[in-house]
Amino acid sequence: MTMDHLLSVDQFDRDRIDALFALARAAEPVARRRKVCRALEGAVLGNLFFEASTRTRISFAAAFCRLGGAVCDTTGFTFSSMAKGESIHDTSRVISGYVDALVVRHPERGAVAQFAQATHVPVVNGGDGPGEHPSQALLDLYTIGCEFARSGRRVDGAHVALIGDLKYGRTVHSLIKLLSLYRGLRFTLIAPPGLEMPEQLCEAVARRGHHVEARSTLLQRLDELDVAYATRIQRERFSGESIEGYTPEFRVDKSFLDTCCGPQTVLMHPLPRDSAPGAHDLSTDLDTDSRSAIFRQSDSGVAVRMAIFATLLGVERRLQGPLPDAGWRSPQRIGPNDAPFYTLDAASRGWSA
Amino acid sequence: MTMDHLLSVDQFDRDRIDALFALARAAEPVARRRKVCRALEGAVLGNLFFEASTRTRISFAAAFCRLGGAVCDTTGFTFSSMAKGESIHDTSRVISGYVDALVVRHPERGAVAQFAQATHVPVVNGGDGPGEHPSQALLDLYTIGCEFARSGRRVDGAHVALIGDLKYGRTVHSLIKLLSLYRGLRFTLIAPPGLEMPEQLCEAVARRGHHVEARSTLLQRLDELDVAYATRIQRERFSGESIEGYTPEFRVDKSFLDTCCGPQTVLMHPLPRDSAPGAHDLSTDLDTDSRSAIFRQSDSGVAVRMAIFATLLGVERRLQGPLPDAGWRSPQRIGPNDAPFYTLDAASRGWSA
Amino acid sequence: MTMDHLLSVDQFDRDRIDALFALARAAEPVARRRKVCRALEGAVLGNLFFEASTRTRISFAAAFCRLGGAVCDTTGFTFSSMAKGESIHDTSRVISGYVDALVVRHPERGAVAQFAQATHVPVVNGGDGPGEHPSQALLDLYTIGCEFARSGRRVDGAHVALIGDLKYGRTVHSLIKLLSLYRGLRFTLIAPPGLEMPEQLCEAVARRGHHVEARSTLLQRLDELDVAYATRIQRERFSGESIEGYTPEFRVDKSFLDTCCGPQTVLMHPLPRDSAPGAHDLSTDLDTDSRSAIFRQSDSGVAVRMAIFATLLGVERRLQGPLPDAGWRSPQRIGPNDAPFYTLDAASRGWSA
Repeated sequence: MTMDHLLSVDQFDRDRIDALFALARAAEPVARRRKVCRALEGAVLGNLFFEASTRTRISFAAAFCRLGGAVCDTTGFTFSSMAKGESIHDTSRVISGYVDALVVRHPERGAVAQFAQATHVPVVNGGDGPGEHPSQALLDLYTIGCEFARSGRRVDGAHVALIGDLKYGRTVHSLIKLLSLYRGLRFTLIAPPGLEMPEQLCEAVARRGHHVEARSTLLQRLDELDVAYATRIQRERFSGESIEGYTPEFRVDKSFLDTCCGPQTVLMHPLPRDSAPGAHDLSTDLDTDSRSAIFRQSDSGVAVRMAIFATLLGVERRLQGPLPDAGWRSPQRIGPNDAPFYTLDAASRGWSA
Repeated sequence: MTMDHLLSVDQFDRDRIDALFALARAAEPVARRRKVCRALEGAVLGNLFFEASTRTRISFAAAFCRLGGAVCDTTGFTFSSMAKGESIHDTSRVISGYVDALVVRHPERGAVAQFAQATHVPVVNGGDGPGEHPSQALLDLYTIGCEFARSGRRVDGAHVALIGDLKYGRTVHSLIKLLSLYRGLRFTLIAPPGLEMPEQLCEAVARRGHHVEARSTLLQRLDELDVAYATRIQRERFSGESIEGYTPEFRVDKSFLDTCCGPQTVLMHPLPRDSAPGAHDLSTDLDTDSRSAIFRQSDSGVAVRMAIFATLLGVERRLQGPLPDAGWRSPQRIGPNDAPFYTLDAASRGWSA
Repeated sequence: MTMDHLLSVDQFDRDRIDALFALARAAEPVARRRKVCRALEGAVLGNLFFEASTRTRISFAAAFCRLGGAVCDTTGFTFSSMAKGESIHDTSRVISGYVDALVVRHPERGAVAQFAQATHVPVVNGGDGPGEHPSQALLDLYTIGCEFARSGRRVDGAHVALIGDLKYGRTVHSLIKLLSLYRGLRFTLIAPPGLEMPEQLCEAVARRGHHVEARSTLLQRLDELDVAYATRIQRERFSGESIEGYTPEFRVDKSFLDTCCGPQTVLMHPLPRDSAPGAHDLSTDLDTDSRSAIFRQSDSGVAVRMAIFATLLGVERRLQGPLPDAGWRSPQRIGPNDAPFYTLDAASRGWSA
């Protein structure tokens, strides 16, 4: 597969997803610190964050480093030359003369595409405001595949519930588009009044032959639910009254998982979750429940982003070939609450089996 | 050539320039992502920017990375220990214990020289306010040499126009000093009233046997012009009235290039250019004209800065020896408007021929 | 020695200190740019500074780079996801999925320990407000050992004066704890009234069999003094009146060293020193006195932090084995005032002898 830039999930069909995820699986032993890859030794990433997003920035940077490359970061709202009136075109073309790939996060929709128009150096959309954040949607789908693989399930025919702010949440918009590429899914869309999934997206999904059902209450049985995907409450987008709809009953917690979901349900959330008092975001009482995949999900970001860089820079084979062992000691599990089946070694084995 | 620090263009004579540029040419295949160099593997750069300058910071960082080194950045106006009353001497000596080279950008003239006095670790002046920015002048001269080489021209005897704010623009001051080291040049200095080149610089240039002519209007024929070097309008240095002199007639655009210059004229600009409405800075209608070298100029920064580091750290031979190929895919051209002759491969070949 | 996290000097006994310092000595030729180590090639450090501390940040980063690893930095008071209500637990667990080790500096006591509770990836306390800063205390003790080694002295039985703000200075609290692990020391604690060492610390030191004497004036003979450790005046912690106690008579300068100390006294200071007018901090007239070890002390930070990372990541043997020479040129001495015996080569030889 060749790809000039990664700007939108609309660039993907199932073949491209399969190719990318095969590469992400090959990257797992490196992302999980078992192997070392030097494919990008000598290459430089421009990691341009015009909007703060520490975890996304570090996830991209770590992915590039694990391929052997070096990273130049910029953070903050003011890019000095842009403050002097420089156009996006000029900024992009100049920085492209220094680096081998660009990740750009920008508060304005379409700004990253403008970066891409000015350069043949590959540009990755790291989130363009209310626009897209394609690497997040890809790692979400990849995580679903990983979780299903353990129990022999497939994405085709799965039952997926999307929960929370489905109106403003760009991650669920991109994810439902990617899931729609598969066959015969059942979507239950659970949103407080006023925060429903946009009508046209629902229609597009239905037209592809999927079953779509909308609800406005959370506490109701979900039959044979495969995935419960809860979104972060984007308080920064609300005015005073509409957040009122986000009542405590909408909180996803262990009681919801035990009562309304099943033993096979995979719980996901794009993180960060708001743990401030009264936030009603995803409860921490789920952290010891092995159905919660929220940290396995964020962990997946490194392997998926390695696959993105490897594709854009044409080093797929270097990642798929034999790789030397990492020379340092890594813990068997990352977090003390990580599920027993989720050791770093097992994860690698799981994928190579 | 040995050099302890790079603080000023006054450190250079023609032999030193020739040696540095020979090294920059050797660095081109690496700067252009065709080859990989590991000469500085294990070395660390302290990239200290006490004033924001994203492109300069990334250009230095990329140059150090392409030599195989690692970079520690600091950005922002407050350096935490300096805020606690630490002297430049102490800051320089302490950081010098951690790194192998320092790039320092500082808003005050002379501050970088103070850094250099406190350490034997090489210090590069990345711009000291109204003082100097020697790597910019060197890459400007290097670009002129590259552009001339394609058409068999030499710097000796060339006709160079410097256009715009010649009073405050430190880049043109440093550039005219370097050009004065060559023989029999003709300088046309075109500045709005009140922004003329300082008299003593003009006299020094004339004393070296060059022809200097000053003008206050742009739109006039320039005979056999080899280089038109336009400066950025430094709006931040003006009070309300003096910027008035910067009328639209002073704008360098395609019409100026077609009417007043020739088919061989190389158009340069240190960037960033101000593309805000009413800025009258360099027009974008020049971007598809192959005479515009503005992005070839900024691209040159990496090779020239690699040569600077290689000289300061004594790894010239590693850069000049045979180097392994880069393992990843790079585009043939960086920008979609790049001139047809300016592919990454051709540029490398051009230099090695 | 195995160690999960480095949170406090309380984790150390003499055997652990000996093991760590043996490793730091092995790291010296790399820290001093004579040798290159690639033990952590492919590894990534998350260098999370929630509070500005440029020198500490760069010292840790340089140490990780000199072991062959790559560094992802975050700086500034706002961590974007924490601003969205994310808990320390979540931040720690998520970033741990990306990196191989974490250095965390945080303004609140105990915050770094919270980071460590959420992850099996090793966490290093880079300073938690009024809490601890264990790597500083370790490099202080290491420096004492290095200085003593040159003249054949031992830590056991040494006479150490701690001078200045002994109430708030966390570095002296941690250092006296570490020194207490040795035998038969004599401590002279010299503090202005109101800034004395906490009583319980003095008692704990005395219980271990050391001799502790307190004074409130500086200018008095100190018999056979081995170490004079002056602290930085933490002006940011004082209200108007209490800083009054910090009279000029409390200033450590060459006259104090000549009059009250001896020819063997090693002068130390954690830096930065406040060189602003009227600060009464450590005088610069000491900089050319070879008894001043203040920059040798800060230089030691790289080797000690390399030893910390090597221990946490289990690559001790890679550092102790034969290592290739560095390929670039380094100065013989770092600073122009460095003592004649302190060349980079001699230092390496000194340790390997």
